[in-house]
Amino acid sequence: MRERALRAIAECQHIASLSEDTGRLTRRFLTAPTHDVHTHLRNRMEAMGMTVHTDAVGNLRGLWNPAEATSKRFILGSHIDTVPDAGSYDGVLGVTIALELLDLARERALPLPIEVIAFSEEEGVRFGVPFLGSRAVAGRFDPALLALKDADSISLEGAIRAYGLDPQQIPRAAIEDETLGFLEIHIEQGPVLETEGLSVAAVTGIVGQSRLNLEFAGQANHAGTTPMQLRRDALAGAAEWIGVVEARTRASKDLVATVGRIEVTPNANNVIAGTARVSLDVRHPHDAQRIGAVNEILESADRIAERRKLALQCTPQLDQPAVPMDERLTAYMTDALASAGFPTRQMSSGAGHDAMVMAGRMPTTMLFLRSPGGISHSPAEAVRDEDVEAALEVSYRFLERLAAEVR
Amino acid sequence: MRERALRAIAECQHIASLSEDTGRLTRRFLTAPTHDVHTHLRNRMEAMGMTVHTDAVGNLRGLWNPAEATSKRFILGSHIDTVPDAGSYDGVLGVTIALELLDLARERALPLPIEVIAFSEEEGVRFGVPFLGSRAVAGRFDPALLALKDADSISLEGAIRAYGLDPQQIPRAAIEDETLGFLEIHIEQGPVLETEGLSVAAVTGIVGQSRLNLEFAGQANHAGTTPMQLRRDALAGAAEWIGVVEARTRASKDLVATVGRIEVTPNANNVIAGTARVSLDVRHPHDAQRIGAVNEILESADRIAERRKLALQCTPQLDQPAVPMDERLTAYMTDALASAGFPTRQMSSGAGHDAMVMAGRMPTTMLFLRSPGGISHSPAEAVRDEDVEAALEVSYRFLERLAAEVR
Repeated sequence: MRERALRAIAECQHIASLSEDTGRLTRRFLTAPTHDVHTHLRNRMEAMGMTVHTDAVGNLRGLWNPAEATSKRFILGSHIDTVPDAGSYDGVLGVTIALELLDLARERALPLPIEVIAFSEEEGVRFGVPFLGSRAVAGRFDPALLALKDADSISLEGAIRAYGLDPQQIPRAAIEDETLGFLEIHIEQGPVLETEGLSVAAVTGIVGQSRLNLEFAGQANHAGTTPMQLRRDALAGAAEWIGVVEARTRASKDLVATVGRIEVTPNANNVIAGTARVSLDVRHPHDAQRIGAVNEILESADRIAERRKLALQCTPQLDQPAVPMDERLTAYMTDALASAGFPTRQMSSGAGHDAMVMAGRMPTTMLFLRSPGGISHSPAEAVRDEDVEAALEVSYRFLERLAAEVR
Repeated sequence: MRERALRAIAECQHIASLSEDTGRLTRRFLTAPTHDVHTHLRNRMEAMGMTVHTDAVGNLRGLWNPAEATSKRFILGSHIDTVPDAGSYDGVLGVTIALELLDLARERALPLPIEVIAFSEEEGVRFGVPFLGSRAVAGRFDPALLALKDADSISLEGAIRAYGLDPQQIPRAAIEDETLGFLEIHIEQGPVLETEGLSVAAVTGIVGQSRLNLEFAGQANHAGTTPMQLRRDALAGAAEWIGVVEARTRASKDLVATVGRIEVTPNANNVIAGTARVSLDVRHPHDAQRIGAVNEILESADRIAERRKLALQCTPQLDQPAVPMDERLTAYMTDALASAGFPTRQMSSGAGHDAMVMAGRMPTTMLFLRSPGGISHSPAEAVRDEDVEAALEVSYRFLERLAAEVR
């Protein structure tokens, strides 16, 4: 198993060399290096006896259908596009581990049909909309998306055609038949497992997310001639509110809230801020708790604005419900953790994944691997050999359990 | 006196029409409309019998030397350059009131030689360095300044030559002989007098000023996957500190402190801030209190950074001592307020003025007029007729007191 783990990692490092940029990894949806990744993975898949095709949205899909199989197929996969200046493991590791699992299943004659999908697009970098690959597979691809333009004014439709695919065929990428479900193996992209000294965890769901923009508006004024008690300082108001966001959020387990963006006018050393625009991102595995926290945080903003005689505008940007993973599959994964001798850690995912989209179509679960330093979306992204080995151990046991159930 | 007040205001409005821009007032140092203002003011001065010249840094200087005078001269003045999109009264009103005072002194045969100076540059807009005019008059013009370039890469030296003046002669602009002192009449540019319902106040000094830049550095991280207790959020740290700045400052009378600028990286909705750079501007009439407050505020920043595991860098930008106005002249002005029937309000100036530079050379004081709405550096800048009349009443009494003393 260690050898397989090392190969899964080496494969990620090789694939990371297939980049748009020299000296760093950037591989956006259907750019030239995607062809190279497809060729590489297709060769590996075909060498293992899989039937391979690229669907109309550019997902590379390999099917392993053992002669002895009687059940519907199970799907493994993750994405092969990257953010700019990316690490080597985000997404891709889920594909290279899937191929090792497939190879293991073949070697051990597991009577389970398995489809491996290398999703073409998850990050949303090129066209500003994420999950293009899994949307198509889940039958949730809105044809209106084809009109999206990238930074070079190439439409999504044009990019698909330029890649040699037919956007008219995207509906045929959707899975129509019954499946056993979907598993995505992915690095955590956060510091939780490392902090707890754990290799892997079963994922119970993807958190729901609220995004809002707030604007505090006061009165820009001279920093020297305006006494403190006559100020309507928008930045001071925003700063007080940022403190409230943090305190309120720390008081609730599993709640995260972030003010990551702030823009102040006139933003000059010697002028009291007239306006302060801030972003708010709130996430929680349970929608009621998320929405309750958002409401409290906004009530605080109102109180602060009123006391400081600031005008407050609040613009909701996103209210995305939590997506629970399939309970049965997640229980199987938790059992697999136990039977492989690992602590049965369950956690929610604070980030979106293809699994979130796939969960709308079929029973879905995820397995997370520790992210050293909690680092992702960075060339410093890493994985530990032992954790990849743990992921292989656990997820192969998961597949065995599935196969035993349908045998 | 009301007629004189109305004329001083009308003159400001006329001079405001002499602008670089159409439809708004912008008149930077020695740009073409400065010529127009010089021509207009020179004509007025000469019509009153003054001896007029433009010194080598572009200050227009008119001398009234009554035959019956026996004393040294007293100087009145303010600046005629403006910020971009300026109001009509900042600086210019001090010149037009000075001309009314001169006319009154002439009419009433006040035996006091008076020089009126329309300083060419105070705002620092064109070359990034303020007080070019008063620096020359006060004998504090550093010739190294001549190498400064404006946005069009024209040097200060070139701009002076293009205006028809000889930069080599700037040392001769310096006042070498003894004078009785200098008075600058200026709008308050703040809300204090309006809040108190007062027309005018004697200025006791220009506040000292500290400017610093601080950078809080934490760890940029995923807003979804990083639990609250594992964050090193630079913006949350900066926000906490902004709250401390405000609270500490409110606790001290006459202290103002402003965080007017904030820049966060990566400044994205879904990424915890890695760095937050903020400015700090602290002003107080007494240097010891200002420096004490700055030290306390920086100690708070240290404590916040340490508790939050943020790195803190602090870069001092400016440490400008307070400039007290001359006690004797300010007492005369306060007496003049009383004798004219006004409350004897004294206040410090939170902004810099030519008087700050002149005070290094000769006894200097200022008189402030109410700024409606506290507004300045804006087309909405205004003055009230009654306040200009009050300024005339009070400052003429001030001149009478001076003349009586030296008679």
